[in-house]
Amino acid sequence: MNVDGVPHRTIRPQADGSVLVIDQTLLPFRFQMRRLATMPEAAEAIRTMTVRGAPLIGVTAAYGVALAAREDPSDAALADAIAVLGATRPTAVNLHWALEHMARILRPLPPRERAEAALAEAGRIAEEDVEACRAIGRHGAALIRDAAGRKGEGRPVNVLTHCNAGWLAAVDWGTALAPIYAAHEEGVPVHVWVDETRPRNQGAALTAFELGGHGVPYTLVSDNSGGHLMQRGEVDLVIVGSDRTTSTGDVANKIGTYLKALAAHDNGVPFYAALPVSTIDWSLRDGCDIPIEERSATEVTHMTGRTQGGDLVTVEVAAPGARAANPAFDVTPARLVTGIITERGIAEPSQAGLAALYPERAPGLHAR
Amino acid sequence: MNVDGVPHRTIRPQADGSVLVIDQTLLPFRFQMRRLATMPEAAEAIRTMTVRGAPLIGVTAAYGVALAAREDPSDAALADAIAVLGATRPTAVNLHWALEHMARILRPLPPRERAEAALAEAGRIAEEDVEACRAIGRHGAALIRDAAGRKGEGRPVNVLTHCNAGWLAAVDWGTALAPIYAAHEEGVPVHVWVDETRPRNQGAALTAFELGGHGVPYTLVSDNSGGHLMQRGEVDLVIVGSDRTTSTGDVANKIGTYLKALAAHDNGVPFYAALPVSTIDWSLRDGCDIPIEERSATEVTHMTGRTQGGDLVTVEVAAPGARAANPAFDVTPARLVTGIITERGIAEPSQAGLAALYPERAPGLHAR
Repeated sequence: MNVDGVPHRTIRPQADGSVLVIDQTLLPFRFQMRRLATMPEAAEAIRTMTVRGAPLIGVTAAYGVALAAREDPSDAALADAIAVLGATRPTAVNLHWALEHMARILRPLPPRERAEAALAEAGRIAEEDVEACRAIGRHGAALIRDAAGRKGEGRPVNVLTHCNAGWLAAVDWGTALAPIYAAHEEGVPVHVWVDETRPRNQGAALTAFELGGHGVPYTLVSDNSGGHLMQRGEVDLVIVGSDRTTSTGDVANKIGTYLKALAAHDNGVPFYAALPVSTIDWSLRDGCDIPIEERSATEVTHMTGRTQGGDLVTVEVAAPGARAANPAFDVTPARLVTGIITERGIAEPSQAGLAALYPERAPGLHAR
Repeated sequence: MNVDGVPHRTIRPQADGSVLVIDQTLLPFRFQMRRLATMPEAAEAIRTMTVRGAPLIGVTAAYGVALAAREDPSDAALADAIAVLGATRPTAVNLHWALEHMARILRPLPPRERAEAALAEAGRIAEEDVEACRAIGRHGAALIRDAAGRKGEGRPVNVLTHCNAGWLAAVDWGTALAPIYAAHEEGVPVHVWVDETRPRNQGAALTAFELGGHGVPYTLVSDNSGGHLMQRGEVDLVIVGSDRTTSTGDVANKIGTYLKALAAHDNGVPFYAALPVSTIDWSLRDGCDIPIEERSATEVTHMTGRTQGGDLVTVEVAAPGARAANPAFDVTPARLVTGIITERGIAEPSQAGLAALYPERAPGLHAR
């Protein structure tokens, strides 16, 4: 999507074999690319959240395998790259999906063909992600269009979103924000309530940055505000992304998503998760089995921002010596989800609903 | 309660007629008193949240009337003081309760007697607040003791609280934290999940400061975490304060409280609001009628903290130019409240339940 009128993608392969990514740890204050030239650099970029967002993590991991194959295409090096990249973030399943996919493609090939094949395959995954996100946008925009029709008189449809599941979380378009961009491009009036998304502030830093950069109206709110806004009728629709969704429709997403789903349910507001099929973990039937990443306490006790003078500074915001816990994701049970917006359409959040859209991915399930 | 072993109160009348308050805008990094010598200084202290918390706002307003009466005890000056102090914060009803109470006491007196009477009455309100909070602590501690009995084997009772309704929000003890202090003093093992409480971080800055200072074990979490903790069985009890509670048991409290009440309800976790009778607005039957304060957008987009060098610095944490909304309170409907812990005991969150404990405050209601 656009940043001040210029179209961008989050990851771009270079002629020299390296890849450029947007350094998302510097956003919203600096828009700066970073070069990943080796597999460990790719792993480090995922671990430190230089790149983040389930789809982009998957694509970066695929390029990480390509960077490894360029250096050493042996079976041992391939296995090592997959192990290192796979250990960077525990919750997002796209990471494992992409790594397994790369391994399946590369293992049968003679080592001398692997580097070129890996680069091509990573590029294919990236393009597929763009197409999947575009299709999610098309299917989801219909929901926003319908809501606009019900509201009438050009009144904007208010969509609440949590965290960043926009183009910065994918290669382009995004997942949760794709329907918003698609509706906006169709001329449907839409306004986004952007949850700040503590503790890493992806909403305040990334979602606000990308909606503002593309010209979509939004208002930033604290994570605490969504329930109150829904009680007052100020939210027409909630759309979030997902880091892993079970075959039964339980949705793991950024911590705090479950609270918004409860509020949506309590106020009769439709609650959608938008995700490509690569986010579905067909092996899981219960959201409780999704591993939840526990991140550093300093993400809660400290915060980085920009001073009036323009310097980026990290300050302590909690009582000195405060002990903090930092679970990074939670699981919204399928019963609170209105629908799952995928590249093939909108699925009921159930085993039958998902299997109906993806019979080839869940053949056993579909047969029942 | 104690700060590093030394007992403190939030507000202390001085021999020269002024009052000292803890400057809570400097916490948790500087524990510093501030002198209020005039009514406008008291109003400013409430408006800027130098003092905050419904009970402490009421007591400070009462002292504000005393400061005004010292300067000019006329009817006109009294009316002016009540108007200025009453306009500082819209949601907390204790403010209006205290001002009306002071007016009722002072108006019948000849002006020359008012200054002394006002000071005495403000002191009485402060002492009554301490006694009310102590009683809330006693009644609420029984809930924690019971939970400890059910858990057994010295396992700590995990209480989640939102915002700061501790001694810093009152004169001493606090409301939501009073049961925790009382249980802790009885030797009941208790551990507190402290919600950060964006955007003003009263949990991270004040609740963590006061629990740590008094030696009560706690863990700070982002506001987004509570639902996940409840899903995992990590919360035994939720106790929050209130800024205004209707006669029917709808509870206005810091923005985000409603989301925690929904999660508690969804997970079978008891949810209590702790408040003195002065927080009940007997004139309201529906929480929707409680005015919700909208505060400055910069509270969401900027944050103040301490640098490694020890300086207090304000940094921008959102995308530059981000538009933000900042509703400061929300309303938790009585149906999500397990009970209301008051100085007279624990009431059912209903008109009948509250009227049964306070027949003299709700005579019409009680008669039904």
